[in-house]
Amino acid sequence: MALIVQKFGGTSVGSIERIKNVARRVAKWKAAGHDLVVVPSAMAGETNRLIALAREIQPQPDARELDVIATTGEQVTIGLLAMALLDLGVKARSYTGWQVKLLTDSAHTRARIVSIDEKAIRDDLAAGNVVVVAGFQGVDAKGNITTLGRGGSDTSAVALAAALNAHECHIFTDVDGVYTTDPRIVPEARRLKTITFEEMLEMAGAGSKVLQIRSVEFAGKYKVPTRVLSSLTDPMLPVADEARSGTLITFEEDPHITMEKPVISGVAFARDEAKITVHDVPDRPGVAYAILGPIADANIDVDVIVQNVGVDGMTDLSFTVHRNDYARAMKILKGQVQSHIKCRDVTGDEHIAKISIVGMGMRSHAGIAAQMFRSLAEEGINIQMISTSEIKITVVIEEKYTELAVRVLHKAFELDQE
Amino acid sequence: MALIVQKFGGTSVGSIERIKNVARRVAKWKAAGHDLVVVPSAMAGETNRLIALAREIQPQPDARELDVIATTGEQVTIGLLAMALLDLGVKARSYTGWQVKLLTDSAHTRARIVSIDEKAIRDDLAAGNVVVVAGFQGVDAKGNITTLGRGGSDTSAVALAAALNAHECHIFTDVDGVYTTDPRIVPEARRLKTITFEEMLEMAGAGSKVLQIRSVEFAGKYKVPTRVLSSLTDPMLPVADEARSGTLITFEEDPHITMEKPVISGVAFARDEAKITVHDVPDRPGVAYAILGPIADANIDVDVIVQNVGVDGMTDLSFTVHRNDYARAMKILKGQVQSHIKCRDVTGDEHIAKISIVGMGMRSHAGIAAQMFRSLAEEGINIQMISTSEIKITVVIEEKYTELAVRVLHKAFELDQE
Repeated sequence: MALIVQKFGGTSVGSIERIKNVARRVAKWKAAGHDLVVVPSAMAGETNRLIALAREIQPQPDARELDVIATTGEQVTIGLLAMALLDLGVKARSYTGWQVKLLTDSAHTRARIVSIDEKAIRDDLAAGNVVVVAGFQGVDAKGNITTLGRGGSDTSAVALAAALNAHECHIFTDVDGVYTTDPRIVPEARRLKTITFEEMLEMAGAGSKVLQIRSVEFAGKYKVPTRVLSSLTDPMLPVADEARSGTLITFEEDPHITMEKPVISGVAFARDEAKITVHDVPDRPGVAYAILGPIADANIDVDVIVQNVGVDGMTDLSFTVHRNDYARAMKILKGQVQSHIKCRDVTGDEHIAKISIVGMGMRSHAGIAAQMFRSLAEEGINIQMISTSEIKITVVIEEKYTELAVRVLHKAFELDQE
Repeated sequence: MALIVQKFGGTSVGSIERIKNVARRVAKWKAAGHDLVVVPSAMAGETNRLIALAREIQPQPDARELDVIATTGEQVTIGLLAMALLDLGVKARSYTGWQVKLLTDSAHTRARIVSIDEKAIRDDLAAGNVVVVAGFQGVDAKGNITTLGRGGSDTSAVALAAALNAHECHIFTDVDGVYTTDPRIVPEARRLKTITFEEMLEMAGAGSKVLQIRSVEFAGKYKVPTRVLSSLTDPMLPVADEARSGTLITFEEDPHITMEKPVISGVAFARDEAKITVHDVPDRPGVAYAILGPIADANIDVDVIVQNVGVDGMTDLSFTVHRNDYARAMKILKGQVQSHIKCRDVTGDEHIAKISIVGMGMRSHAGIAAQMFRSLAEEGINIQMISTSEIKITVVIEEKYTELAVRVLHKAFELDQE
């Protein structure tokens, strides 16, 4: 008997019938002798409907009031799911974020979790209840309703698993695990039975949309064994089989797991970015800040940043931003920044893609980068930017080569083979 | 400058445009120098939608979880209304029931208010905010979400007005006040500028649907001056005019008001009841309880109860129930009760109407009942049951005479004249 936290996404609870299926799945785990804490998202489309309603009133909705409205989506689901469990004869009780209470800071619409009071949940579990907790939401020290931002339900689930020291956190989603790359692009893509936390983090950062990067960070920080698995399978699949399905995020400490790992675990990509280059900037302290400070002030997130060694006291600085922020970023740079730092020019390109290879094995194997660049070169794909971390190599290329690059790299690193 | 609580019903906040109109109306009162606490209902249809969703999961929804779900309707409205006020440049903050906090007992779906902590609201008002409070909802001592039952937003508003010692509580609705009777039946019906609390209570009990009887009870208990007025008028109507519009519920203590009152204030009616008669029951202690106890145990509300003086140790007992409960009540009486008390027969009729005349002036005027019965007799309307209180006379008649009886009585007591 173990304590398990199970999170179900919006699609998994998108209709009354699906909520009943979730209840059957949870009831099955409960019947197998486990303690269950279940974290559902809002029904698919509901959060967007609520935000659209708010935008009809205020195009830029007040953040505090938006949180009041947006949290109702999950509040409805917890009630419905608790009822569905009760209807199956399973004792269940729902908790909103403030009832838990899940304490956050006061940064409305993107709050960070400060602490979780798990006392009441433990008492309810001890009394034989399945506890159903609203994802995505919390409460600040002054009693204001807060939300954790998009994908926050994953974070809620992992944080609850950490606070309760759960055996595993199950993230049920519409894919059946983490793949070596997107199977829609490479049909030979394989599901990974395990992936290390560091790899998962890099995959999420590199564009894999299976898990939100924040929930992965949380899982890593508190070493929560987290399993990504499918909610589309038969809900009455035997528990023993379901417990081994999907992909388990593990921690490097386990040498047994690490030794078995291949050099590269996956190929990730992102197409929703744009690149910007600031040309011939004076190569002196404070220049990077003079460029990126105003971008950060405008709440624009910057992803890859590349600056090469300067020549004749001048250098170029390039970075990528989300495509939706491209026009705004260019306006800031062409305006206040260019006149301030006296650079030669600012250019940009919206038609780029970011391709990354990720793998713990990279640490101990030389020549991985060379092999990556050669594979791309053989297909005539030009590399525009390069950025590396200890276990990831990212390149920026022309957007039209995205699928080709992903397929070539997937094959070059033999990811289609066990 | 005064503190005013304004409640807006579901129709008044039924669309984005209407919510903006409510915000304009509130902003106008704020600009006139008043402190405002605003209590909106859920958008029209939303509570029914949520309850239907719950019923799809559980035909008899778990009461605790139903409250979790149902309260989201008002939570959405408070956020939207606060945003609409902010958008007009008016400082505003929303409060859910638990944020207030509005403490209730634990009777889910029909909780009673225990206390209201008005400290935070007072601080926010002092800081210049309009405070927007979710109606219909509260929280029990253990932190469970509760609701006050249908029409609970009226009760929330009056209770807040009592706790804050407000100058007036405004109930904005889709009628422009309390009328001498339903204007759809009697076009000459007049709006009453004032009505006493006792009259309003009897009118609500007698079938007038302008205000929920519980909110009237609350207004009376705490002597909250409550004004019923229309949300369909131009939101920019001058405050001085709006402050005199509608119908004000007053308290008898004011002799100036009482002296001006006519004998009868209104004619109320209800068509959704059925009558049941238990014939030839032994006229001894405990019989009324033996009949009505099992009815109450089945959660069936009984309205008018009539028992006449017995003859030869036997009597008849008649009462009315809601038409929806008629079949169930008959089954209980024909079954366990009839065999237990050994009465001769149980008969019933679903096609009845209840007609009442209400008025404080009745106390000091003889012959009101006689005049009522004569007026009905002149039209050939047979009276099946009679029940009286100090300021109300109720008769039960055949349903098809409803409109005729209402018109005849409205005219007989000269309610069409100032």
